[in-house]
Amino acid sequence: MARSAVIGVMGAGEGARPQDVKTAFELGRSVAREGWVLLSGGRNAGVMDAVSKGAKAEGGLTIGIVPEANKNTLSDAVDVGIVTGMGSARNNINVLSSDVVVACGFGGSGTASEIALALKSGKSVILLNNRAESREFFATLGGSLVHAAETVEDAVAAIRRLLNAA
Amino acid sequence: MARSAVIGVMGAGEGARPQDVKTAFELGRSVAREGWVLLSGGRNAGVMDAVSKGAKAEGGLTIGIVPEANKNTLSDAVDVGIVTGMGSARNNINVLSSDVVVACGFGGSGTASEIALALKSGKSVILLNNRAESREFFATLGGSLVHAAETVEDAVAAIRRLLNAA
Amino acid sequence: MARSAVIGVMGAGEGARPQDVKTAFELGRSVAREGWVLLSGGRNAGVMDAVSKGAKAEGGLTIGIVPEANKNTLSDAVDVGIVTGMGSARNNINVLSSDVVVACGFGGSGTASEIALALKSGKSVILLNNRAESREFFATLGGSLVHAAETVEDAVAAIRRLLNAA
Amino acid sequence: MARSAVIGVMGAGEGARPQDVKTAFELGRSVAREGWVLLSGGRNAGVMDAVSKGAKAEGGLTIGIVPEANKNTLSDAVDVGIVTGMGSARNNINVLSSDVVVACGFGGSGTASEIALALKSGKSVILLNNRAESREFFATLGGSLVHAAETVEDAVAAIRRLLNAA
Repeated sequence: MARSAVIGVMGAGEGARPQDVKTAFELGRSVAREGWVLLSGGRNAGVMDAVSKGAKAEGGLTIGIVPEANKNTLSDAVDVGIVTGMGSARNNINVLSSDVVVACGFGGSGTASEIALALKSGKSVILLNNRAESREFFATLGGSLVHAAETVEDAVAAIRRLLNAA
Repeated sequence: MARSAVIGVMGAGEGARPQDVKTAFELGRSVAREGWVLLSGGRNAGVMDAVSKGAKAEGGLTIGIVPEANKNTLSDAVDVGIVTGMGSARNNINVLSSDVVVACGFGGSGTASEIALALKSGKSVILLNNRAESREFFATLGGSLVHAAETVEDAVAAIRRLLNAA
Repeated sequence: MARSAVIGVMGAGEGARPQDVKTAFELGRSVAREGWVLLSGGRNAGVMDAVSKGAKAEGGLTIGIVPEANKNTLSDAVDVGIVTGMGSARNNINVLSSDVVVACGFGGSGTASEIALALKSGKSVILLNNRAESREFFATLGGSLVHAAETVEDAVAAIRRLLNAA
Repeated sequence: MARSAVIGVMGAGEGARPQDVKTAFELGRSVAREGWVLLSGGRNAGVMDAVSKGAKAEGGLTIGIVPEANKNTLSDAVDVGIVTGMGSARNNINVLSSDVVVACGFGGSGTASEIALALKSGKSVILLNNRAESREFFATLGGSLVHAAETVEDAVAAIRRLLNAA
């Protein structure tokens, strides 16, 4: 049995920009069409919610890892909620559980911590439509682990390359 | 969309008794046949491994939450591995993520911690073929949250009642 | 520089029995008089609060590891609060950080999880005035790691022996 | 009883630059002279080790929160080791437990995650001799929570102002 790859998509919750929510939905659709499992922060807001909805629109499997100690904040588009009850310390689980990490759009400090934790654990990170300051900073930290993408297609192609190289 | 119930099955890894491994496989089959998601500690040993194999034998969905920081110890029968890198502190995530918790067989101190953490968070726990000392101790702690079962059928009936009452 | 030993005292919060609170205060005094650091679950209730107050009454150093994400519930008798924001998953940190663990009085399911997690990590646990059911259950799990004590003096003597043997 | 303030100093371990190690030692001395408790990542390397040594040189109290599951990597200059066994997820505990966070020197991705997690939880962060890219990136995320300092004296003055304003 070959286990499906798990793609972790990180991004803003409540404060997400409309264009980032739209991109997240498209990214979720593409992840599902590739047969990958979609993993996110699980909450019913912003990028997390939209990427799960996109994946479900294509019949994909969606996993959400929430910071809360119950499923009250879990997106309706998440099939299986992992309930950590450990606040932002759960961000490290998000990245350790993902074969490739995508930071989608202008994230806040939570997303920044996930990029940093991914690099710390040696994971590749794709910055999709990220801040210029973010790309510059993380490039100085992560070197070749850090990839930039400007479209969902570019991001998916990068994920494919990274999975094949693994 | 109605999200499927998540049944967490806890039990020994390497030191599991043969009869407990056999029971775990049957329990996994039953969980999958009911359409429930199977959640376990994810490792490729003992009760964790057997319950996942049973669920996969019936085409169920299996989630495994491992204490390690990578997927090296993950059972082949787990569809999606949640990688915590936090050792036994992950036991609390196992129970918080489960709608009902089943302790299968004579578990060790890891399983005992999971029963205790489940009760602490107000979750119902079914003790299936557990030690007499365990049933007595946890009954004094958990009162009506603690249920005993002697067969897989009894355990499944108890899960069904608990899910309907929730 | 020889680092002082850290003694972790676990026990009930809000629901603690009066006699257990009294014992905890005396145990805290004894821990401080021996020059050991007192570590507890840190909250301003029950055994956790009393043991810290006892240690401070003798000028000891007190560390409290709270489940909350801020210091609002921290006992006034704790010198340094470790804020985990991870609920009961912090129980594993309590025991990993302690050189010897004492379960003081009739604890609830939180304390039971700490005893189990201590045994899981190979730590010695002293059960001071614990339930008979607890002593029996944990003896079947932990074997020679589990020690029973009926007085503070006995507990302190057992701690001393365990530290010398380490 | 007024509890002493806890100052968390974050920075690189093995790969720390010599000038950052030197600054960390001076910062540790200053923290201790102010009567503050010094909290760090606890390991016996780089900025973590040096800041603890500086604080001990002035008789301060030093707390170290290690990612490992034992005290083997703990700096000799740490008085009390908090053993988390949870890898980089412990970074969130470092910042939640600190009243003010200082990132000392050119940190790696671990330090970056701590800055991000501190901002996520609403903590003030002082960037002492940090990368220009880091200052720019975190200023866009954290706004007025982010402070830059170029000398230990500036950092200590900023800590004092932040503690007085709290």
